[in-house]
Amino acid sequence: VKLSQLGEFGLIDLIAKRESKHSDTVVGIGDDCAVLKIPSTRYQVTNKLQKAKYLLITTDTLVENVHFKLPRDSFFDIGQKAMIANISDIAAMGGIPTHALVTIGLPEKITVEKIKELYRGIDSLAKRHKIDIVGGDTISSPGALVVSITMLGEVEKKYLLLRSGAKVGDLICVTGEFGGPAAEGFESRESKVESRIREARMIAKKQIATSMIDSSDGLVRSVIEICRASKVGAKIWEDRVPVARGAVLDQALYGGEEYELVFTMRKSKVESRKSKVGNAKMHIIGEIVMAKCGVKLMDARGKLKALKSGGYEHFR
Amino acid sequence: VKLSQLGEFGLIDLIAKRESKHSDTVVGIGDDCAVLKIPSTRYQVTNKLQKAKYLLITTDTLVENVHFKLPRDSFFDIGQKAMIANISDIAAMGGIPTHALVTIGLPEKITVEKIKELYRGIDSLAKRHKIDIVGGDTISSPGALVVSITMLGEVEKKYLLLRSGAKVGDLICVTGEFGGPAAEGFESRESKVESRIREARMIAKKQIATSMIDSSDGLVRSVIEICRASKVGAKIWEDRVPVARGAVLDQALYGGEEYELVFTMRKSKVESRKSKVGNAKMHIIGEIVMAKCGVKLMDARGKLKALKSGGYEHFR
Repeated sequence: VKLSQLGEFGLIDLIAKRESKHSDTVVGIGDDCAVLKIPSTRYQVTNKLQKAKYLLITTDTLVENVHFKLPRDSFFDIGQKAMIANISDIAAMGGIPTHALVTIGLPEKITVEKIKELYRGIDSLAKRHKIDIVGGDTISSPGALVVSITMLGEVEKKYLLLRSGAKVGDLICVTGEFGGPAAEGFESRESKVESRIREARMIAKKQIATSMIDSSDGLVRSVIEICRASKVGAKIWEDRVPVARGAVLDQALYGGEEYELVFTMRKSKVESRKSKVGNAKMHIIGEIVMAKCGVKLMDARGKLKALKSGGYEHFR
Repeated sequence: VKLSQLGEFGLIDLIAKRESKHSDTVVGIGDDCAVLKIPSTRYQVTNKLQKAKYLLITTDTLVENVHFKLPRDSFFDIGQKAMIANISDIAAMGGIPTHALVTIGLPEKITVEKIKELYRGIDSLAKRHKIDIVGGDTISSPGALVVSITMLGEVEKKYLLLRSGAKVGDLICVTGEFGGPAAEGFESRESKVESRIREARMIAKKQIATSMIDSSDGLVRSVIEICRASKVGAKIWEDRVPVARGAVLDQALYGGEEYELVFTMRKSKVESRKSKVGNAKMHIIGEIVMAKCGVKLMDARGKLKALKSGGYEHFR
């Protein structure tokens, strides 16, 4: 079925049918706005201060030939990837995703079956994480397919984790391994969508971290972002970086496309060098130093090295 | 200045600098998510039931050559238009816009000056309506310029106006005039950005309307949408439709691109045939009938006519 045969309202009906209502969704798809109950009102009666919550909001957009390629990537994978990018942002704040808006820019040639596949990818993660799709926009896009998702979440005030809390002397920790997506190469890359939402939540609830970020743009860049926000520097211990099978160190440091967690902890809170958070191995890969030291690599013999320009150039 | 010379972080800094913080914005641009205080918590202590609020969320995307054309439209106008589309959606629910996320997909050839112009358009309305820009995404877009805005708002429970509340016997009312943008034509069209946020709010606070929608897709289509959502039909009185100077009836009925309000009222609440809401003239243009009658036009002699296929085809 071609999109032109279905028509705009046919498409809206197709999308609206997918909706599963949360108890706090007053109006979902079909009006000018979605209407949501304020998340915290559920809790405020019982225990006002303990359960005070913030609203989280983030947006991420994937564009054909920039963030994915057709027909290399399946529509299902593209849908999942768009969701993961947003879920990961909510998780990195210590929060839980609750609602999403999905905007798709559709080239004329696209078939309804492909759009359904895209939404099947989106829905699979919406269902797993109990995220309500409450709206969006469907537009024609000359040339490239565009998938843009805005996600809402909530986090208890006391569990909120920012990028900006790292202090000199803190240890830099990561979940999982790095370099896998970069090593697998463009053609052979499969969809590996794992978001560390459960692990992020555990870290937040333990209240052991001083800052956190997801690693979607690469490990080094994530450390740089924490340093920028916290006004500190960092030493990354090269030999402690968990490199994925088949990848080399540079791919682990600069590759990106993982959705792991990078976070900092007070030294006194660390129980052992290698441990686990939920299903993920946790590795300590460096320490926070003074801002004037910048962000540097340290090899096994203790020699400091500058970052590759790809990572360092961003640091300004 | 070319975009490539500025670099991604240069651009983020450019955008982040614009930010003016609301008192309920905990974290704006620069972390994984924006963090907002839940709007209703401000009010709940004093008067829980009276001031209970809902969160509103909407998104609208403009694509080059679909919703605007370059160089015909100025970047300032495009920025304003993207804001207006979203503000108008919040207004149509009876609400007030509070926060926005701005995602722009930039073709490589675009200059930094043009991007600044775009943001100047966005900021002008953000400032006027006290909307905080708390995040977004900046991506490269091969070919077409894309501007996508997600907007949050809030509305008191008792003022919420949906499309779905129209009842048989209600009168159909509109603000302003119709057909202007269609009549002015593609080439000569100037930016006429007026959002009826003040008038929408007055209608909501008077609690006189049973349903409301904005007229961005055309007057007839707006009536059809109210009818779809409310499971009713409508008669539109042709000779009562306020046609803009220089426009003909068909342009007023099907043209679109206005951001006026279309709403329904109980007959008993209407004081006079022609009156004002805020700065806008209010016109009564028809009445709600049973669903089985469909949506029809009625001429001055009382003769019923079918809608043009452009409007009617959508009604299924």
